[in-house]
Amino acid sequence: MQTYNAPLRDMRFVLHELFADDEFGGLEKFEEFTPDLLDAVLEEAARVARDVLLPLNASGDEEGCVLENGVVRTPKGFKQAYDTFREGGWASLASDPEWGGQGLPETVNKLVEEMICASNLSFSLYPGLTHGATTAIEGHAAEDLKRAYLPKMVSGEWSGTMCLTEAHCGTDLGLLRTKAVPQEDGSYKVTGSKIFISAGDHDLTDNVIHLVLARLPDAPAGVKGISLFLVPKYLPKDDGTIGPRNNVAVAGIEHKMGLKASATCQIAFDDSIGWLVGQPNKGLAAMFTMMNTERVSVGIQGLGINEIAYQSAVAYAKERLQGRALGGAKQPELSADPIIVHPDVRRMLMTMRVYAEGCRALGQWASRALDAEKHSKDPEVRARATDFVALMTPVVKALFTDLASEAANLAVQTYGGHGYIREHGVEQFVRDARITQIYEGTNGIQALDLVGRKMAANMGRAMRPFFHAVSALCEDLTKSQDPQISAFAGALMQNFGALQLTTATIARKAMKDPEEAGAAASEYLRMLGLVGMGYTFLKAAQIAKARLGEGSGDADFYTTKLATAAFFFDRILPQATTLFLTIKTGKASMMALPAEAF
Amino acid sequence: MQTYNAPLRDMRFVLHELFADDEFGGLEKFEEFTPDLLDAVLEEAARVARDVLLPLNASGDEEGCVLENGVVRTPKGFKQAYDTFREGGWASLASDPEWGGQGLPETVNKLVEEMICASNLSFSLYPGLTHGATTAIEGHAAEDLKRAYLPKMVSGEWSGTMCLTEAHCGTDLGLLRTKAVPQEDGSYKVTGSKIFISAGDHDLTDNVIHLVLARLPDAPAGVKGISLFLVPKYLPKDDGTIGPRNNVAVAGIEHKMGLKASATCQIAFDDSIGWLVGQPNKGLAAMFTMMNTERVSVGIQGLGINEIAYQSAVAYAKERLQGRALGGAKQPELSADPIIVHPDVRRMLMTMRVYAEGCRALGQWASRALDAEKHSKDPEVRARATDFVALMTPVVKALFTDLASEAANLAVQTYGGHGYIREHGVEQFVRDARITQIYEGTNGIQALDLVGRKMAANMGRAMRPFFHAVSALCEDLTKSQDPQISAFAGALMQNFGALQLTTATIARKAMKDPEEAGAAASEYLRMLGLVGMGYTFLKAAQIAKARLGEGSGDADFYTTKLATAAFFFDRILPQATTLFLTIKTGKASMMALPAEAF
Repeated sequence: MQTYNAPLRDMRFVLHELFADDEFGGLEKFEEFTPDLLDAVLEEAARVARDVLLPLNASGDEEGCVLENGVVRTPKGFKQAYDTFREGGWASLASDPEWGGQGLPETVNKLVEEMICASNLSFSLYPGLTHGATTAIEGHAAEDLKRAYLPKMVSGEWSGTMCLTEAHCGTDLGLLRTKAVPQEDGSYKVTGSKIFISAGDHDLTDNVIHLVLARLPDAPAGVKGISLFLVPKYLPKDDGTIGPRNNVAVAGIEHKMGLKASATCQIAFDDSIGWLVGQPNKGLAAMFTMMNTERVSVGIQGLGINEIAYQSAVAYAKERLQGRALGGAKQPELSADPIIVHPDVRRMLMTMRVYAEGCRALGQWASRALDAEKHSKDPEVRARATDFVALMTPVVKALFTDLASEAANLAVQTYGGHGYIREHGVEQFVRDARITQIYEGTNGIQALDLVGRKMAANMGRAMRPFFHAVSALCEDLTKSQDPQISAFAGALMQNFGALQLTTATIARKAMKDPEEAGAAASEYLRMLGLVGMGYTFLKAAQIAKARLGEGSGDADFYTTKLATAAFFFDRILPQATTLFLTIKTGKASMMALPAEAF
Repeated sequence: MQTYNAPLRDMRFVLHELFADDEFGGLEKFEEFTPDLLDAVLEEAARVARDVLLPLNASGDEEGCVLENGVVRTPKGFKQAYDTFREGGWASLASDPEWGGQGLPETVNKLVEEMICASNLSFSLYPGLTHGATTAIEGHAAEDLKRAYLPKMVSGEWSGTMCLTEAHCGTDLGLLRTKAVPQEDGSYKVTGSKIFISAGDHDLTDNVIHLVLARLPDAPAGVKGISLFLVPKYLPKDDGTIGPRNNVAVAGIEHKMGLKASATCQIAFDDSIGWLVGQPNKGLAAMFTMMNTERVSVGIQGLGINEIAYQSAVAYAKERLQGRALGGAKQPELSADPIIVHPDVRRMLMTMRVYAEGCRALGQWASRALDAEKHSKDPEVRARATDFVALMTPVVKALFTDLASEAANLAVQTYGGHGYIREHGVEQFVRDARITQIYEGTNGIQALDLVGRKMAANMGRAMRPFFHAVSALCEDLTKSQDPQISAFAGALMQNFGALQLTTATIARKAMKDPEEAGAAASEYLRMLGLVGMGYTFLKAAQIAKARLGEGSGDADFYTTKLATAAFFFDRILPQATTLFLTIKTGKASMMALPAEAF
């Protein structure tokens, strides 16, 4: 059965303890939010996730979305859950108070996102896309558009979408064909067909606000001729209420592998009325504001699935009786031992758990930079935070979602044959997780973004906050008196050294041949992500030792944290060695065959 | 789109060339089958796979099986396809001519199985289970049962099942509760509920013959009290025609993640008439005859999915235009380059391809042993072949299916967003492949079988044919004058050394603590499998070099083979290094937490 209780203790750990010495500093802006208040928010969110969203996760998958008479109907219960969600203020947690948001830090918001995604990934798309769209509008739209749309979107009364993809263009947006023709009143008429539009239409909100990439009549070819338009489903009247229907039609909804309760629409714009957001021909930059926000959120989606997969597998492993412990019966009074006694089951559970804890910690590190980037008063801190966010965005997106799919598959494997049966609900995690590796830029594209842009730009400046932090911690803790801590630090140091060497090699090779960067990209992203996770586990272990030394009343938590750290250093970090070896071989054998030989 | 043409050239390569120096020797029994005849069989099978089975693969998934009025209906077209299949003699390719089979070697049969599984995995279950059941009946049943059932089953007129699992017991068959009560006429009345029965009921054949594990009234507890019974859906009359209906009911069919055109049934036996197969309380041994056959076949299922996933991804990668090659446009006349130009796409395609080629070669090696075990006149060869089959059975089952899931996921990733949409048909590969890692013993159980039984029994005798072969080839080819061959051999030698060291370490540790074997099992299986694949790639590369040196007219094939071998040694074999490092850490961090800490 799908089992989920938000891991509040670990969330409080990453929020309050793990980065207490944060390089991005305390932010004045958030001083009003006391730890107790933030904990209360997390607890309340956990309740919503468990009681409101989780009960609709499997039924939503079973029922799916339906297109009827041109309108999308979400599964039973979704509208009511969305109303509860919206009325509780969850749609606007991190939004700017200027537009009615609650202005909470991303450090907390991302933990709440994790809970929403864990308990109901399909549901999370509706507020998730809206949040992304408001970010783009806030960052780029004219004041009157902001005033007309942001309050309703921030409150969750209206929702948002991002309309990029067309049938013949996804990754390569330069190919897009949707047109926008300026009208005399300053509006535009937008015409074209978009596909894969998440939350493209549904019955949860009164209006759907599409952000649409299109070309102006005189636009240059390629990505330099793309502009962004705001195209509402219903045109608002001056008093903010819903006016006439715009010419925006749902041409179809996709039948997908998973994420079935999220409506993925084909949207047909036909002389649809819209307004320019940002500058003409600068639409991609505006859209990337949204895209980058979404990419981090997609990583958090992965983390959520990872956690629910882990918890669901644990529940089964404790309950399913089968076989005996290899060293002799553990519970002879039962017909068989619970399968959690078996090393191979432990291997799967520990892997899922360590992935989730590592991603949660790494995500928190990135979230602190998201907040600092926006709110720090120190321009140097802001600049460093911006660099760190730029580096971590593709890592969070790709690493977390790759690990999520691994974890979801491990959960199915823990269930054995029962995992393959739909009613148990774990195979849904595999199907739902699968899209997170693809949308908002495939993980291969994330990897290229990392090695081709983030690593290369400004002489590798974006790498520095990360490299400095890891290097400083390793240097400090290899000298630790505690043999376990110094061993962890030594292992991390060694792999970090390999990462630095690899970074330099790729940079050098790529200068002569960009395909060398492409050939290294996916493995490099994973390698960097592993070192990043190692950094958080080393930090966590150090804190755990200190707390245990102080005689903390929460010894179980810290002892367990040390055990997960040990598993990470024993069984997960060594993945980096293979990555190091494979990257070293370069592009030759990858690119040797002519296309015809395939 | 799902794209599949049987890889006949590579099949001929593994069949005729790769093991020409075969340690298991030429078999007199098969001398009548000339290479030309075998090639003709493969070609005809390829046609059936492409023209009869492939067209029903996606539609079968969409429609699924339905239980109506107690009878299972397979998807549209399946009955007709099955008739074509049966009439063509494909159901009995490797069966004993004594029972109407065609007596072809397993070396060819497994290649045909690969084609059937690639083009329609769900379909393959119906003849597949029948084949397994006939093997068990042939090996263990009394003569009159053989005469009554085998001819009809071998011809495919009747089908077979294996009824092991009950709701509370899968892996741990000792827990099973189904009862069999002897009757005065020598028959038994069988009562109990079985689940997960593949091909448990359907409309393809006139009768379904269940092989059922059950307990006699006086049976000892646990696995030593299990007997095997043959329980037909219809009781045959003396003239071999269908008689009255037995009391065997379909209590339900499972709604599964995939494999939807294969009927997975809950079967209720209620005083159902059956007959003992083999000795009382020795049912598990009899069932394992069937199980071992099936395990190798499940590995081949994985290989089939791997191949169709690869081909489908290649077709898309050549056709989908998106972006430009990193080093500059490759096809400037088009709006964009086909995505096959991108290194990260190449990485995915080459990985899938190399997995498929490696598994095909390794599967062929195992198939030669399957034939030799049965038909060699030399008792020493037979004994060696038996050892080799014992060792390779869990490896083929688990390695091939793990790689199949990886490959299927890579195919989806190659398609990007389109891969997530059902109509493209590639996400089906992921859903279908997923069960192969679970059924006939989860891959974790295969790994335990490898380290706990195969490695441990008779002082590791089962390992020897494998270790000797790899060792001899490495020793020979590290001295090769050809620098590429000696480099490949050196890489293999190094990883083989690590494998030997790991084997010794596990054996030593496991003597004191069996959990140490359990903790190493999954990684060890993969490591041994990688070395096995490396052996086949090294052999293949050596042959390819020789043929190219001779000026073979088929230079493209051999050049490509060298390229895939190079990719294997560069990018796949290094996985073994991480496995080596993780196994070395032992069970400590895996088993550290008490169950309550999860």
